[in-house]
Amino acid sequence: MAVEFPHRHLLEIGPLSEEDIWTILKTAHNLKEVLKRPIPKVPTLRGKVVANLFFEPSTRTKLSFERAAKVLSAEVMNFSARGSSLEKGENLLDTVKNVEAMGPDLFVIRHPASGAPHFVARHVRAGVINAGDGFHEHPTQALLDLLTVWEKKGTLKGLKVAIIGDIRHSRVAHSDILAFRKMGAEVYVSGPGTLLPPEREALGAKVCLRLEEAVEGADVVMALRVQKERHGRPLFPNFHEYARYFGLNRRVLSLAAEGAILMHPGPINWGIELAPELEDFPGQVILDQVENGVAVRMALLLLLLKASET
Amino acid sequence: MAVEFPHRHLLEIGPLSEEDIWTILKTAHNLKEVLKRPIPKVPTLRGKVVANLFFEPSTRTKLSFERAAKVLSAEVMNFSARGSSLEKGENLLDTVKNVEAMGPDLFVIRHPASGAPHFVARHVRAGVINAGDGFHEHPTQALLDLLTVWEKKGTLKGLKVAIIGDIRHSRVAHSDILAFRKMGAEVYVSGPGTLLPPEREALGAKVCLRLEEAVEGADVVMALRVQKERHGRPLFPNFHEYARYFGLNRRVLSLAAEGAILMHPGPINWGIELAPELEDFPGQVILDQVENGVAVRMALLLLLLKASET
Amino acid sequence: MAVEFPHRHLLEIGPLSEEDIWTILKTAHNLKEVLKRPIPKVPTLRGKVVANLFFEPSTRTKLSFERAAKVLSAEVMNFSARGSSLEKGENLLDTVKNVEAMGPDLFVIRHPASGAPHFVARHVRAGVINAGDGFHEHPTQALLDLLTVWEKKGTLKGLKVAIIGDIRHSRVAHSDILAFRKMGAEVYVSGPGTLLPPEREALGAKVCLRLEEAVEGADVVMALRVQKERHGRPLFPNFHEYARYFGLNRRVLSLAAEGAILMHPGPINWGIELAPELEDFPGQVILDQVENGVAVRMALLLLLLKASET
Repeated sequence: MAVEFPHRHLLEIGPLSEEDIWTILKTAHNLKEVLKRPIPKVPTLRGKVVANLFFEPSTRTKLSFERAAKVLSAEVMNFSARGSSLEKGENLLDTVKNVEAMGPDLFVIRHPASGAPHFVARHVRAGVINAGDGFHEHPTQALLDLLTVWEKKGTLKGLKVAIIGDIRHSRVAHSDILAFRKMGAEVYVSGPGTLLPPEREALGAKVCLRLEEAVEGADVVMALRVQKERHGRPLFPNFHEYARYFGLNRRVLSLAAEGAILMHPGPINWGIELAPELEDFPGQVILDQVENGVAVRMALLLLLLKASET
Repeated sequence: MAVEFPHRHLLEIGPLSEEDIWTILKTAHNLKEVLKRPIPKVPTLRGKVVANLFFEPSTRTKLSFERAAKVLSAEVMNFSARGSSLEKGENLLDTVKNVEAMGPDLFVIRHPASGAPHFVARHVRAGVINAGDGFHEHPTQALLDLLTVWEKKGTLKGLKVAIIGDIRHSRVAHSDILAFRKMGAEVYVSGPGTLLPPEREALGAKVCLRLEEAVEGADVVMALRVQKERHGRPLFPNFHEYARYFGLNRRVLSLAAEGAILMHPGPINWGIELAPELEDFPGQVILDQVENGVAVRMALLLLLLKASET
Repeated sequence: MAVEFPHRHLLEIGPLSEEDIWTILKTAHNLKEVLKRPIPKVPTLRGKVVANLFFEPSTRTKLSFERAAKVLSAEVMNFSARGSSLEKGENLLDTVKNVEAMGPDLFVIRHPASGAPHFVARHVRAGVINAGDGFHEHPTQALLDLLTVWEKKGTLKGLKVAIIGDIRHSRVAHSDILAFRKMGAEVYVSGPGTLLPPEREALGAKVCLRLEEAVEGADVVMALRVQKERHGRPLFPNFHEYARYFGLNRRVLSLAAEGAILMHPGPINWGIELAPELEDFPGQVILDQVENGVAVRMALLLLLLKASET
């Protein structure tokens, strides 16, 4: 594959051009064929080493990167913050430098501090993928969301995308707003007033105080996860209120465009952000998102590791 | 191998015919040859993916499945409940569906709730192996016990098997009673009265209030683990009493048939269910059980994954 | 490779002859070439199984052994004490015997009790590597330290090595003193008086109450990690005092020989045992130590597994 991909790291959506994103999406789309083979395994990245550094609990994202690496025959080094040298007080850079001395070609980093992957990228020779940093970004989630929408809708340009929930604190929302807008979609956000950014900080999304305004005519409706751990903090509404005013259900989704798709980054709190009746909503594509997560991460491993070789 | 094995899942002993069990035991017995090679690895399941979903702590069972998968060149995805999306409140089915979207061919599930693997099996395309569910069953343990007894005794039919301990709450006991009886053995159970089921709920085992009655003339004596975590609950005797009245020792085992074997599913509480003097008891086959665990699980991976292909 | 290596286990430095150590160092040095290949992987130990049994938290040592095993195509079984049968009260020997019944060729054991790996080695057929036992030894750390010094200095014989810190409780110090002395270096130790052994228990190292006496003219200066978890215990100085009297900085290191190297087994407490100004000290070889850790462990896996075959 002689694809042009001029990046060593994937830290955030900003530096990616529209063309870069198409490269990722098309590579991922093509790689899905590998996942459907009887033996879903290719030797492409044999001997390459991917280090998963997760400083926050995670299941699906970590498993997804692991699976992506293994399908491409890359080795995985798993480092998790529990039971590690971090508990002995080691600083982030020393930890990363130590792992680097054992030979990984690429770091996948999730960290509670915004900017941690950027900081690491400035200090290591290996490539870095941001797998979620604080309130900042979660770019691989946005890319798998783009792939899902593109595959379902046949286009990205001109779509109306509605994102509902705690926009202010959601790294998923931030990456999605930037990514969908870059690809020519219009993004509307809604949620409890205290969890909405002011218009000028909404990264170009249109901020709607009323849920219905965001959803009306939308081609894509994405619910964010309610972070239960924030429950009871001053700005956060209680779950009952949240479900009543910003929970999605069939009635609200009937306002969306015909054939609208329903997305959620998971894990879902059924009965809060999604009504249980939506489990069999025809446009629900939540598991397609998970499946596309593996494909998008395979594409990124491939593009970044090939790119960093030259 | 053109073996007939008409099951997609292994959830409990009930649905297995005597012939199915012989298929498993013979396949496992033959596979032990692979484990003895200088390079104990065959490419049979290359590209297949086994997802270990352990919602309870476990070491030996998980390692055993992992080892079985790797000898057959299958990939392993390890999901454990700690530090996972479950801690974020995700329900079991969503968790399983999410993992499934990443491509496993088979789930191995341990769960504190009886019936959880059955529930999962009804909702996924992949096969499911029950690796222990609540107080219900632990069928792979029973199968490795059958293999061990068959290899040591040359037969299963007509043997007298004594199982000693907390029969009421033991998933190992439940699976073993059903499996040994299906293969034509007679099963006697004994233990503290409060931990014995009434005769009509004993799955066909003969319930003996006196330990000696169960052990007398037995070809196989199996001690169950005393669940220390139950200690002090109303129905549970204290350890001292347990050791005195239901702990096995050389004196009690002298009542068994000549050449009787002594089994234990592990981990052992020495001094409680087994007297320390039994460590070098000639009929002790506890480590054979562990070794056979890998072989039985290899056989099951092979049979279920081949079966689910057709 | 027809190397003579007459050991089945690596439990401590004592039983290794000078020649054995040269065999390890040269094998490791040569294996570093493999680590630099585009595909750093050789099939040498395909089908061999290394069981990591870590009864204490660890990151770097465990990852290092894992990486070493994978480069040589050995399988890794990871057992950690958390969430394991140990929490159910199983004794060490039963745990090890159980893991052994699943087929590993080699155990790598870290344990809080001094002597635990020796105890295990007396009871298993597989080889055992001590990856750190209580206050006793950490022999693979000493071997990687030797490799690093040899590569940087071109020799080991006649060097002056200064080790600074809690000598009394440091398994790293114990293994290093024995290893460097065996190879013909002179070892000086210094640290807070309450943390120094009496001269007759210093394993042949010269005990210096004043830091400067140990460092003066040294070719190698090694700082030990201050175990924060001991802070506040009667014999342990507070961090401020420690940094003031035994922390290394440029001023102290100016007393060392020209071209002296600075070592640390990690994780580092910057500002306590090392002044932050030492981060770019020209003779700092801390990451070389980490890199050499993988190479030394590869060499040991190779030598012990080949040796145990014959």
